[in-house]
Amino acid sequence: MGKRRRYIIIVAGGKGERMGADKPKQFLEIAGKPILRRTMERFISFDPTASMTVVLPSAWKNWWKEYCTSSAFRCKFSIVSGGITRFHSVQNALKMVPSGALVAIHDGVRPLVSDDLLKRIFEAAEELPAVIPAVPAVDSLRILDGAGGSSPVDRSRYVAVQTPQIFHSEVLKEAYGKAYSPSFTDDASVVEAAGFPVTLVPGERTNLKITTFEDIRLASLLTED
Amino acid sequence: MGKRRRYIIIVAGGKGERMGADKPKQFLEIAGKPILRRTMERFISFDPTASMTVVLPSAWKNWWKEYCTSSAFRCKFSIVSGGITRFHSVQNALKMVPSGALVAIHDGVRPLVSDDLLKRIFEAAEELPAVIPAVPAVDSLRILDGAGGSSPVDRSRYVAVQTPQIFHSEVLKEAYGKAYSPSFTDDASVVEAAGFPVTLVPGERTNLKITTFEDIRLASLLTED
Repeated sequence: MGKRRRYIIIVAGGKGERMGADKPKQFLEIAGKPILRRTMERFISFDPTASMTVVLPSAWKNWWKEYCTSSAFRCKFSIVSGGITRFHSVQNALKMVPSGALVAIHDGVRPLVSDDLLKRIFEAAEELPAVIPAVPAVDSLRILDGAGGSSPVDRSRYVAVQTPQIFHSEVLKEAYGKAYSPSFTDDASVVEAAGFPVTLVPGERTNLKITTFEDIRLASLLTED
Repeated sequence: MGKRRRYIIIVAGGKGERMGADKPKQFLEIAGKPILRRTMERFISFDPTASMTVVLPSAWKNWWKEYCTSSAFRCKFSIVSGGITRFHSVQNALKMVPSGALVAIHDGVRPLVSDDLLKRIFEAAEELPAVIPAVPAVDSLRILDGAGGSSPVDRSRYVAVQTPQIFHSEVLKEAYGKAYSPSFTDDASVVEAAGFPVTLVPGERTNLKITTFEDIRLASLLTED
């Protein structure tokens, strides 16, 4: 089978109000560079030939374009507006992708993904319709009952799912052509609901999803440049 | 209610064979000090009047005593031998604790717990039989089916549980007086199985459980001395 052309969709459509900063978290800086730029640079460095689409909040598209110009971040990418949910954001971004390609969907706030993980997961995805990185759950887990209580579950049966999640584009387009369900937790769950198998590959503990200021501190310490 | 006397049980009974180092992970060093010493020092610094018991693998008890002597780590603590499981280790350690006390049970490989978390959880535990720290699940979660497959679960219903878990000693002793079950995932699950309520308080993302070399790297970066 020939090597499939690669498309990267970076999902950074969140308005990030929960962190209470002056801008959404994907635009906050680590060592002088916005998190989103660091995330994009990971993929550009890994494969400069891949096409890249970035999902942004509508209200921040101009801000981002101006940042890129003023800071001489020269990188060819398309911008699409974030939808009401992640599902709708990815659906928008997929309009630009042809069949017969590989599509990597990645969180804009995971700037620490390594070359090694990217290499392993892109290779696995050549032969498989849907491949996602996962790490074992380290802490004990409890399930909340919705009424203030909680009970323990068997941690060894759970894994924590990361991104990039990589799909054959025709599979992804078929899955995203169906109706939205609130039970979709990530792109893999959309593809599964459409009947395709999802394969797990080992993720990386350091592939942090930045959601709090503590995470920014952690990520700053792990950032080498 | 009078303030309860505090007992700390540091569980470091693991033989740590999975990491493939020359010693169990609790004895590996971060910035020149064994992880276990760093963990113990967090509690000593927070409350030097608390009694401390350390659960160690039998084969490493002498090594640890010699380390403490040779490195002038002067700290009063009892040592008990690790049991077949964590349950049996804690059961051994509890023999030294009277009723009417507070018992904090903490992983030997969580050296980054903060004074703030310790203060909050000890205070909450004065009035509640069992208090444990938990953080929201950040990554999507999947449940493994045991046959190589997996399926998504609703992450918002789960929390990741940390330590220290703090209990009224009479509650803990009653719970640990009952028969062992392989369904026990942590100390809270033992106490719950005996019919006591468990209360969650906010944990800290930086309160890492060190289980891999990547975690040692992360913890080194977060260690200030």
